[in-house]
Amino acid sequence: MSQVGQADVTSSGSIGLGGDELKADAARLPRIVILGAGFGGMAAVEALRGTAADIILIDRNNHHCFQPLLYQVATAALSPADVAWPTRAILGRQKNVTVLMGEVEAIDRLERTVLIGPHRVSFDYLVVATGATHSYFGHDEWLAFAPGLKTVEDAISIRRQLLMAFEEAELSETEDERSRLLTFVVIGGGPTGVELAGAIAELARHTLARDFRRIDPRNADINLLEAGPRILPNLPEDLSTYAAKALDRLGVTVRCSTRVLSCDARGVDTDRGRLEAATLLWAAGVTASPAVRWLAADGDRAGRVKVNAFLELPDDRSIFVVGDTAAAVDTKGNIVPGVAPAAKQMGHFVGQQIAARVRGETRVKPFTYRHQGNLATIGRSSAVVQLDSIKLRGLVAWIFWSLAHVYYLITLRSRVLVAISWLWTYLTFERGARLITGSGPRARTPDHMP
Amino acid sequence: MSQVGQADVTSSGSIGLGGDELKADAARLPRIVILGAGFGGMAAVEALRGTAADIILIDRNNHHCFQPLLYQVATAALSPADVAWPTRAILGRQKNVTVLMGEVEAIDRLERTVLIGPHRVSFDYLVVATGATHSYFGHDEWLAFAPGLKTVEDAISIRRQLLMAFEEAELSETEDERSRLLTFVVIGGGPTGVELAGAIAELARHTLARDFRRIDPRNADINLLEAGPRILPNLPEDLSTYAAKALDRLGVTVRCSTRVLSCDARGVDTDRGRLEAATLLWAAGVTASPAVRWLAADGDRAGRVKVNAFLELPDDRSIFVVGDTAAAVDTKGNIVPGVAPAAKQMGHFVGQQIAARVRGETRVKPFTYRHQGNLATIGRSSAVVQLDSIKLRGLVAWIFWSLAHVYYLITLRSRVLVAISWLWTYLTFERGARLITGSGPRARTPDHMP
Repeated sequence: MSQVGQADVTSSGSIGLGGDELKADAARLPRIVILGAGFGGMAAVEALRGTAADIILIDRNNHHCFQPLLYQVATAALSPADVAWPTRAILGRQKNVTVLMGEVEAIDRLERTVLIGPHRVSFDYLVVATGATHSYFGHDEWLAFAPGLKTVEDAISIRRQLLMAFEEAELSETEDERSRLLTFVVIGGGPTGVELAGAIAELARHTLARDFRRIDPRNADINLLEAGPRILPNLPEDLSTYAAKALDRLGVTVRCSTRVLSCDARGVDTDRGRLEAATLLWAAGVTASPAVRWLAADGDRAGRVKVNAFLELPDDRSIFVVGDTAAAVDTKGNIVPGVAPAAKQMGHFVGQQIAARVRGETRVKPFTYRHQGNLATIGRSSAVVQLDSIKLRGLVAWIFWSLAHVYYLITLRSRVLVAISWLWTYLTFERGARLITGSGPRARTPDHMP
Repeated sequence: MSQVGQADVTSSGSIGLGGDELKADAARLPRIVILGAGFGGMAAVEALRGTAADIILIDRNNHHCFQPLLYQVATAALSPADVAWPTRAILGRQKNVTVLMGEVEAIDRLERTVLIGPHRVSFDYLVVATGATHSYFGHDEWLAFAPGLKTVEDAISIRRQLLMAFEEAELSETEDERSRLLTFVVIGGGPTGVELAGAIAELARHTLARDFRRIDPRNADINLLEAGPRILPNLPEDLSTYAAKALDRLGVTVRCSTRVLSCDARGVDTDRGRLEAATLLWAAGVTASPAVRWLAADGDRAGRVKVNAFLELPDDRSIFVVGDTAAAVDTKGNIVPGVAPAAKQMGHFVGQQIAARVRGETRVKPFTYRHQGNLATIGRSSAVVQLDSIKLRGLVAWIFWSLAHVYYLITLRSRVLVAISWLWTYLTFERGARLITGSGPRARTPDHMP
């Protein structure tokens, strides 16, 4: 985008990046800028449907990603396009929205503009919904050795790393090397870690079982590390115990009360000893996007922006922060958790709030978070679900989990294709999306095939 | 794979990369090494099913790619996993085959070994099926400006480039810039060029029509350049004329008798003038993989290895070359064309030839090529098909084309998923795989979302 010139700037809150159509209308309509097309941002845009406003949604990617299923892309069960949809396509019919692809560089609160590359976009209302990224507890150098799973790019990259480990093991000359290549360590025993470890076990034990001649993928050593005393700490203890047993049956070694001391290219050091492993995956912690810096606002320890009961900045009622970027406390005094349903509820609340203000109303009811439950899938036919007082586990939980996730996929096309893919994998143990693509070790040698 | 140590080398033709299992058996079984898991290599492997041999299939990718549908990945209709399947999974049940992922660096005809990275793989029989890549007629510097479409990576990269052109146009400040970004030039009027140009037109005119606010994708200027007097020169002239009209109806400007003089970052110079265009795609020519150099063999002008009537090197009857890498002349004196059915037939013939020799028989019938016909699809409901004396065009040709391609997809899973995707696209004009992924302009800034 370097060829694109400097955008027009006006201080009226009505600039349109030089676009004539936008300028004409925008002089009259309030401008709402929403940063981030995740669950929070999309819910805000949808709640603003029909509002007489000029809405600009900005994301660095061209797609909305259904993060809860990213681990299935990383473990080759689904294709990227099954869990991510072009933002423009989702919002094509909502005529009051303009989607722009770009990255936030700064927010100028005095000028009421957001800097997107060389462009300045002014706003009357701003919704920051830029999510979170992995936190390495101050050890950002571990990122190179233990990638996390937040984006479609991450998933494609982890898929390549997982599959290449088996390819390299097939070619390796020594037992030590083979064993290191077939050792996988997932760090963090929350839902993502549990799902990743279970899926890697199924990939190795079932899908790849027949595919190699010199190694037996079923001997892969899959470890799940958790610093606390039990995995899935947000779930009741009996469900944690059930999940740990189910993982054990899949062949995952669950190591609780095990703290990571350092990660390197050949393994991980913990307070209980070292694991030699070619593949480390990080599912241990997240930190908010740098909205605290952009807004020069108060943040909590996790880097989240402190908002008031209306999800506004305390000193600026036209700037809202939602989802994983917000440190919100609901009316009962509980911190709103960093999960997809919370982001959706916050986005929806803020969208309605702004819509009401545009209509000239004033909403006075603060945000309340409705907790819908916790769930995690462990593998084929096995999951744990907690909904208020209902607890499910095993096959019935897995069916509930599958139906819930298919239901929440955005497009009917994805629902059909994902349902077929899952049924297929369930019946055959095949995983359809086992492609090694993207820049890996191989891509360095741009020679001919093979 | 740099951690993998140097492989054992023996001169007995029976080394197994240090693998003990392979060594034991291989001392007795003949070793057949097949380079390339394209149509030719896979057909050879399949023809060797049940043969008492130690077969090693080597490819730089982990997947077999169905190249005829790559343009649908490039234009966002299908996902990569719909048209590419892990080679290991296809051959998992064929126990006499070991699949290795690696790149050929050299072939040592005296030592009877192939050098794959740091590994030496010995052979008794060698099948070279490493395909072809784009030819820029001595102007390799054009590759950077006008990429071609041969691999899954190419398709993902072209998809990103196409979709980013619209994204950048939406942000552009000047009419000139917008117009340059919305101009697409496909160079080469063969089946791939026709299919690409038609698919880009449908993407712009239908799929993306509603998605932007500041540009109208329907105004995209799509050009198909052909140096010769007509597109699809392999088809009868009336089908060429029909295809040109069908492209015109889709909004593609077909420019025949137009020779490219040079490509650069901002457009293309031709002998009929310059086209300012942000996106150039190359479908004009191919050159064989460097097997002539590897084998120190005789080659033709297109870089293909000259083989005898049995597809062997004239001076070495245990080395075979098939597919786009071979300059083969069939019994009627016609050069075997560089198309998928020819590669399959050649691979199958060579596989049978080697199987017979392993059994101690000697096959004496030389290779004969059966031409099955020519076909190309132009867009929704439109294609041209020529089978011997039968000519089809329009909807009936399109249905034939669709059924033929679904039928030839390797796995039942892909057949089901591709059929659903196509039906969906046909009914709704939606394209499901419109994701911008991989390293592009954006990926340079590893900052937070959005």
